[in-house]
Amino acid sequence: MDLITRYQEVRRRTEKICSYLQTEDYVVQPVVDVSPPKWHIGHVTWFFETFILKPYFMGYEEFNPDYNFVFNSYYETVGNRVIRTDRGNLSRPTVIEIYSYRKYVDEAMANFLHDGISDDVKELMVLGFNHEEQHQELLMTDIKYILGHNPLFPAYNAEYAAPHFADPASDSFIKMDEGIYEIGFTGDGFCFDNELNRHKVYLNAYEMSPKLVTNAEYLEFINSGGYHDFRHWHAEGWDWVKNNKVGAPLYWHNIDGGWHHYTYHGLEPLHLKAPVTHISYFEAYAYASWKGLRLPTEFEWEAAATRFNWGQRWEWTESSYLPYPGFAKAPGAIGEYNGKFMVNQKVLRGASEVTPPGHSRITYRNFFQTNLRWQFTGIRLAK
Amino acid sequence: MDLITRYQEVRRRTEKICSYLQTEDYVVQPVVDVSPPKWHIGHVTWFFETFILKPYFMGYEEFNPDYNFVFNSYYETVGNRVIRTDRGNLSRPTVIEIYSYRKYVDEAMANFLHDGISDDVKELMVLGFNHEEQHQELLMTDIKYILGHNPLFPAYNAEYAAPHFADPASDSFIKMDEGIYEIGFTGDGFCFDNELNRHKVYLNAYEMSPKLVTNAEYLEFINSGGYHDFRHWHAEGWDWVKNNKVGAPLYWHNIDGGWHHYTYHGLEPLHLKAPVTHISYFEAYAYASWKGLRLPTEFEWEAAATRFNWGQRWEWTESSYLPYPGFAKAPGAIGEYNGKFMVNQKVLRGASEVTPPGHSRITYRNFFQTNLRWQFTGIRLAK
Amino acid sequence: MDLITRYQEVRRRTEKICSYLQTEDYVVQPVVDVSPPKWHIGHVTWFFETFILKPYFMGYEEFNPDYNFVFNSYYETVGNRVIRTDRGNLSRPTVIEIYSYRKYVDEAMANFLHDGISDDVKELMVLGFNHEEQHQELLMTDIKYILGHNPLFPAYNAEYAAPHFADPASDSFIKMDEGIYEIGFTGDGFCFDNELNRHKVYLNAYEMSPKLVTNAEYLEFINSGGYHDFRHWHAEGWDWVKNNKVGAPLYWHNIDGGWHHYTYHGLEPLHLKAPVTHISYFEAYAYASWKGLRLPTEFEWEAAATRFNWGQRWEWTESSYLPYPGFAKAPGAIGEYNGKFMVNQKVLRGASEVTPPGHSRITYRNFFQTNLRWQFTGIRLAK
Amino acid sequence: MDLITRYQEVRRRTEKICSYLQTEDYVVQPVVDVSPPKWHIGHVTWFFETFILKPYFMGYEEFNPDYNFVFNSYYETVGNRVIRTDRGNLSRPTVIEIYSYRKYVDEAMANFLHDGISDDVKELMVLGFNHEEQHQELLMTDIKYILGHNPLFPAYNAEYAAPHFADPASDSFIKMDEGIYEIGFTGDGFCFDNELNRHKVYLNAYEMSPKLVTNAEYLEFINSGGYHDFRHWHAEGWDWVKNNKVGAPLYWHNIDGGWHHYTYHGLEPLHLKAPVTHISYFEAYAYASWKGLRLPTEFEWEAAATRFNWGQRWEWTESSYLPYPGFAKAPGAIGEYNGKFMVNQKVLRGASEVTPPGHSRITYRNFFQTNLRWQFTGIRLAK
Repeated sequence: MDLITRYQEVRRRTEKICSYLQTEDYVVQPVVDVSPPKWHIGHVTWFFETFILKPYFMGYEEFNPDYNFVFNSYYETVGNRVIRTDRGNLSRPTVIEIYSYRKYVDEAMANFLHDGISDDVKELMVLGFNHEEQHQELLMTDIKYILGHNPLFPAYNAEYAAPHFADPASDSFIKMDEGIYEIGFTGDGFCFDNELNRHKVYLNAYEMSPKLVTNAEYLEFINSGGYHDFRHWHAEGWDWVKNNKVGAPLYWHNIDGGWHHYTYHGLEPLHLKAPVTHISYFEAYAYASWKGLRLPTEFEWEAAATRFNWGQRWEWTESSYLPYPGFAKAPGAIGEYNGKFMVNQKVLRGASEVTPPGHSRITYRNFFQTNLRWQFTGIRLAK
Repeated sequence: MDLITRYQEVRRRTEKICSYLQTEDYVVQPVVDVSPPKWHIGHVTWFFETFILKPYFMGYEEFNPDYNFVFNSYYETVGNRVIRTDRGNLSRPTVIEIYSYRKYVDEAMANFLHDGISDDVKELMVLGFNHEEQHQELLMTDIKYILGHNPLFPAYNAEYAAPHFADPASDSFIKMDEGIYEIGFTGDGFCFDNELNRHKVYLNAYEMSPKLVTNAEYLEFINSGGYHDFRHWHAEGWDWVKNNKVGAPLYWHNIDGGWHHYTYHGLEPLHLKAPVTHISYFEAYAYASWKGLRLPTEFEWEAAATRFNWGQRWEWTESSYLPYPGFAKAPGAIGEYNGKFMVNQKVLRGASEVTPPGHSRITYRNFFQTNLRWQFTGIRLAK
Repeated sequence: MDLITRYQEVRRRTEKICSYLQTEDYVVQPVVDVSPPKWHIGHVTWFFETFILKPYFMGYEEFNPDYNFVFNSYYETVGNRVIRTDRGNLSRPTVIEIYSYRKYVDEAMANFLHDGISDDVKELMVLGFNHEEQHQELLMTDIKYILGHNPLFPAYNAEYAAPHFADPASDSFIKMDEGIYEIGFTGDGFCFDNELNRHKVYLNAYEMSPKLVTNAEYLEFINSGGYHDFRHWHAEGWDWVKNNKVGAPLYWHNIDGGWHHYTYHGLEPLHLKAPVTHISYFEAYAYASWKGLRLPTEFEWEAAATRFNWGQRWEWTESSYLPYPGFAKAPGAIGEYNGKFMVNQKVLRGASEVTPPGHSRITYRNFFQTNLRWQFTGIRLAK
Repeated sequence: MDLITRYQEVRRRTEKICSYLQTEDYVVQPVVDVSPPKWHIGHVTWFFETFILKPYFMGYEEFNPDYNFVFNSYYETVGNRVIRTDRGNLSRPTVIEIYSYRKYVDEAMANFLHDGISDDVKELMVLGFNHEEQHQELLMTDIKYILGHNPLFPAYNAEYAAPHFADPASDSFIKMDEGIYEIGFTGDGFCFDNELNRHKVYLNAYEMSPKLVTNAEYLEFINSGGYHDFRHWHAEGWDWVKNNKVGAPLYWHNIDGGWHHYTYHGLEPLHLKAPVTHISYFEAYAYASWKGLRLPTEFEWEAAATRFNWGQRWEWTESSYLPYPGFAKAPGAIGEYNGKFMVNQKVLRGASEVTPPGHSRITYRNFFQTNLRWQFTGIRLAK
């Protein structure tokens, strides 16, 4: 696919996601980790403008210099920015103005790409596509949070096609041999800097579950008092449970004794066969501990991933998010993409039902703080 | 004016105020004291529905039972409600839905009023008008906060007619004699419960300024180091200045050495002759202290108010907001209107440029916490 | 009594209070409002050193210049100081060192007073006596807090003589006529600046209870659900109850269904006939509201105080702590004594069982924030 | 050495450390991470009483049942406990009472050990020794914090023998080959559960500095603006720097332009040749990043540690604190020793000048949160 077509497809996909929203849904930020949808659609546009059009497209005129302040996410190199907690306090620019901004940048990109570009810029373009795809996933989870925390529990889109969750052929754990494995990206395609360098690790013999933990299984943990027994929890996790009065995954509601959960279709009775989701690392760890098992490391996951199906849930691993041997940050603002977050976060592997098709891969590393639950996170057990 | 006409006028005035907003402006809540405009227009409607239609209009069908949870402000009697800090997290109901709610209630009110109503309900109607007028003022100040804290500093309405601030004929302080004065509402019209009972107070001889402190005068306080000299401040005010790094009234910006302030027309050079506004009680007190003067009590203000012009700024007084002798709360939810706020607040007297015409009067008591600045507050000196 | 004798008596009384403490009891600060006893005994000494010896005693050598930083309470005029929350973090100077400091200053004071002093200094001496007496009361209440919040509930002093609480001859409310009353200090003796100027107030007819509310009566409020019914509370008081899970006065413990309270003798079954104490203004207000009565204003209290016994409890009034007409702060640091606290506090009148004999009087104004409970506060009803 | 002699030596060493304190120094807790010395000496005694005497010494009578509440640190299995932030609010039990408790338990231990004990109990004894040694190190660092944050900067012990910091023979980095290394404890002696199981890791070729970064070298980082350049920092570290206004290691004071640091001898001019200490992981990482180098992983450290001198500073590694393959928690309260802290902490390797002799070893794993600085932490660079 040529770059201009790919560009248009990525951009259209973002707009399709937002097409089900009311104007008001674009504006709010109910918690700091959830950005307003209008911020997302401005920010991904700002990314192309800032890193491609402004440095490489001779004669390009910035749409509005104040937008740099509004739509910069965390790039210190690029200047000051609205503090993150304030994103939901901005009524302007309006949604219509941001769509004008998108159109303006899209037209400039079309003109820019028309004449052919250097390999360096091609690399930035592909980074921009992947960046926008990451925000597509965030849009889906942020929208779920915004609507799922509204007392009216509105549906996002009645036609949303939830994935079919097929059972694997067998429940037997997959056995993996002790030895040296190669970890990290290799090949010609795109990868993020945090997937490099490919390197060897030594793994003890281990076993992986072929399937994700289901809501029915997780309910057993709840019903057996899992949230009230400190022995399953990290000390910090136990504090988190007590301070936040946590007793179930995010979006679960016990109504008159029956469990429901908020989905893109609104509030529904709990889907027992679906893989459990919207749990923190603390909960994933506690569940595994309660089962007498454990979470896999990201290396165990990657080494075994060709032998099971993945892609329904982001899977918490036991691994902290750290640089691979030989990891080097790119110079300039792009170097802020991943490296500066490599502390106090856990790696997740796989992909989820809202990850854009083709976006993830077996070496892909997602990462979040241990208390966060608004992504479609899940549990695969190891031993 | 008959009740139905008055009802329609009040309701139209609210909608006129909002007619200059973009949809997004209706949604945000940048600080806890500022409510989203869409919450205001829903809440004042809920007030008529809850206190008039539901108890008195036989056969009335509630528009949406969930709206009680969304639009209740602080009436514990009427049940649970969205916590105040969450008002800006609600994208639904949408602005259009809330205007439908207004229309539905307005039609029901028209039908209800058509047949004539009891005196009790008439009283509630008048309370509803005054309540909605209070929210009109809050709408104006909340809108100013929302737009004035946006990095793009959009104008609210380019045609907004700022009042003309005429100098009084004389600067000489008005002399008032020692003696007994009567304080509190008397007469036939409407007053709030906190204006009653009318009672006697004994005042020492005192003097009142015929005019409000201007921006130019306040600038002298700033330039002489007023924000850096603890001697002018209450201990609590001094902590407030330091913790919040306060150095000027709200909305003032020093740009390249020149003072500007945000107005309904956008950012403008400071109007030197206009009365200073958007200051806290702490600042009003410190200014008076720096001048070697003081703020009047609310009783001094009321006793002298026929002898000066008021209505441009809400004027901070030295008086704490306390019940008058014989004050009694009404039974039920309406009794929560004023009494439960009579602690740790200061009384303001007068009215401001955004107070609805005819809403205030010489016995009217407004009240806010000592650190708040988003109202059009000002200073009149006494000695 | 001559000044030197009075000085010695005041100083000895402070040391007597502390004679029952272990060294460790002198050090801790369990909440910000409670200062470590060793801080108190250093601070009152610092007061004489700073305001009398250093300015007036030629050739006086400061004991230790760093002590100014440690023992200054809130006098901005006198320089920087340890922030209040850090007082309990200081292990040095030790208790022995502080007693050496007391001895050093006491000897210097004896030498200084020996030669006779001016009237100005006499006034400062009397202020110093009254200041140290205020800290004697604070010492008693802070010690109670320190020991009463220790899980071992140690007694302060087994010989502590709790006052005898005699019932008044009659329960009938005292009737007071409408009219003008004079309020504020008059006479030759000492008073604080906040008791001046004496001035007239106009009071409606009112009635005052001749007695304080007892623990037995307050228990009825608790047992009838008073802490669970928002209607009795200010909005801010209701938040306070819920955020702090308050359900009884400070120091009350329900052990196996029976109410106990911590006293200077340790934990004891609740004394039902004793006047209730250690309640906040919010609780005093709620109790009065539940009874269908109210708290008196400080003016009502002062006008009627010759007609009832007082001195067992500090009595919450409805009055906010505000300056009297003509109130003027003294120049310099002494001017920081009272005036800068005249905001967001309530006046208490009377005295308590731990007030030094002769310290209080009918015009004395004590004041605390509305949520504080560690003083011996109580309730007298009015109507 | 027999158990009873070892027991006595460990216990005496704790008391020797405290022998330089004033009673007041035992009591305070200036930040949550620093426990009062009297708490430490009670807690290590409680450990022997709770895990050895009560379960294994027939007829043992508990010294005081309330002490379990006071001296339990974090063992949920053993019941409720004083919350950590309240340790510094307890004046009782007094220091003398706690020494009586120590004596009582020591005598009971002597009687208990006299008759010979099982291998299980021997293991618990050795754990108790190692536990008390850990608290000896904490005592030294907590005492430094308590005295070093006092405005009088008292010396701990004028005879304290600071270690001699000899330069290594060469500055050349030690070269390590790519390949498989064995990590974790092996042998007969004591180790903590977190050092097991011994297992293989695969390491790329790497290099280690033979020496620690010095104060002089760290000063270059400060002088070149290292604390003001976001590019060297993790995003979370950068927030930490700005929120806490960090500009130098803990205990450094710039007095009239010259750098000083607090030591056990009091405030002294900065020792330029000494290895830098009292820095957070964030600072260690930023320093390495500024140098164009990096911190080693704990595996790289362990594999190379026979080739350099260590023991002066706890050395921050890049590794997160995670379980080794096959790690299993012991059943019961002892199982809470390490495992529940294996999240959001970084591993430190080595030992420090205040680590008890013989306490650490090449496989020892210490761990702290990334922002903590009160230990003697340092930097060894790798590439």
